[in-house]
Amino acid sequence: MPAPMFNALLFGLTGCLVDHGARTLPVALQHSGLERLPGDPHAPELLPALLASAAECAEALPGVPELLHDLSRQQLPHAWLDELPETACRLLAEVLPPSIRASRPNGARPWPAPDAIWQALAELQVDRLDGCVLIASEPRLLQAGLNAGLWCIGLASCGAPCGLALGDWQALSAAEREKLRAQATLELYRLGAHSVIDHPGELPACLDDLAIRRSKGEKP
Amino acid sequence: MPAPMFNALLFGLTGCLVDHGARTLPVALQHSGLERLPGDPHAPELLPALLASAAECAEALPGVPELLHDLSRQQLPHAWLDELPETACRLLAEVLPPSIRASRPNGARPWPAPDAIWQALAELQVDRLDGCVLIASEPRLLQAGLNAGLWCIGLASCGAPCGLALGDWQALSAAEREKLRAQATLELYRLGAHSVIDHPGELPACLDDLAIRRSKGEKP
Repeated sequence: MPAPMFNALLFGLTGCLVDHGARTLPVALQHSGLERLPGDPHAPELLPALLASAAECAEALPGVPELLHDLSRQQLPHAWLDELPETACRLLAEVLPPSIRASRPNGARPWPAPDAIWQALAELQVDRLDGCVLIASEPRLLQAGLNAGLWCIGLASCGAPCGLALGDWQALSAAEREKLRAQATLELYRLGAHSVIDHPGELPACLDDLAIRRSKGEKP
Repeated sequence: MPAPMFNALLFGLTGCLVDHGARTLPVALQHSGLERLPGDPHAPELLPALLASAAECAEALPGVPELLHDLSRQQLPHAWLDELPETACRLLAEVLPPSIRASRPNGARPWPAPDAIWQALAELQVDRLDGCVLIASEPRLLQAGLNAGLWCIGLASCGAPCGLALGDWQALSAAEREKLRAQATLELYRLGAHSVIDHPGELPACLDDLAIRRSKGEKP
């Protein structure tokens, strides 16, 4: 089979590349004083807690460094985007190789509006929407990707819906893990994700599958 | 049949809504000193000629005022975009109703990159790519629309490939018109346009047809 041809990959940051369980997200929500990001910080006294959480959670998910290294070697344009406050994002992203680009929203409407996705693709100098893929665990980001017209791959076990650090996740019984994973998987498929995988380590096989679907004429 | 449901319509300006034959375009190219727009003006002494041409060509194509009035009445978001110098665009667009929005490129790469198209959709506060349509005669703009993932409708007789003012076009023999129209139509279909019509007056019927294709599951 020929190598799958994609033009660009966009990733969520928290709960996708770093911070298993997106544990920084509830702290950021508390900090913003809103039910959903982004918002101007309402509670500056909570900023230290947010930054402490980001620093603590700044750990790459298993398989992510190798994955990003491969993308860089293949010269496949890729970037992360997130709606957490910039300082928190910077702390979280410090553990990633510098080859991955950060795309900060520049006047974009918040997710699930498609603006931030299109901006990220333009920043990557992508020449067409065709063959662009978003990988994320956050339902609002996945919805933004769907609205922007991308192929969207959901991550089930490492995002906010499961909400656990890797060690806590692995400490669950197999049955507990399966129950949480099944709920998150169903939620992301209901949203419209084209594929749902458990964690980023499964991405290469998933892209192979999407490449086959594309070669048969399927469109996102 | 239910009313066709589209989310937003983007139009070219010259050779689409105004300036039959896109006659301002060769003057603008001469002014820019480039083979293709956009470029910084290389020859300021040609600017008066460009503005004179734009003022002379600032005439709405037949059916355009009624069309834009209908879109406004239906509250269907719509905008024009063009790569001519801003002063020329302003002169050309003066004959259009104020209900149509102008989208000026803001750091966007030139056509056929998709950036300007995505910017225009974001400015219109469109919530998804699905159901967005570009109507234009300029092949590079149509290519940008295809790259951005929109439905693209080409206009055959009123753009630069035919290149004639309305009166000159109508003064041709039927056989001459047919020959030019067939060439332009073929060129736009080869490019990948989803539909090619002769002039903007045929747009409502064309949108009805696209709506049927969409309802059958076709994607752009």
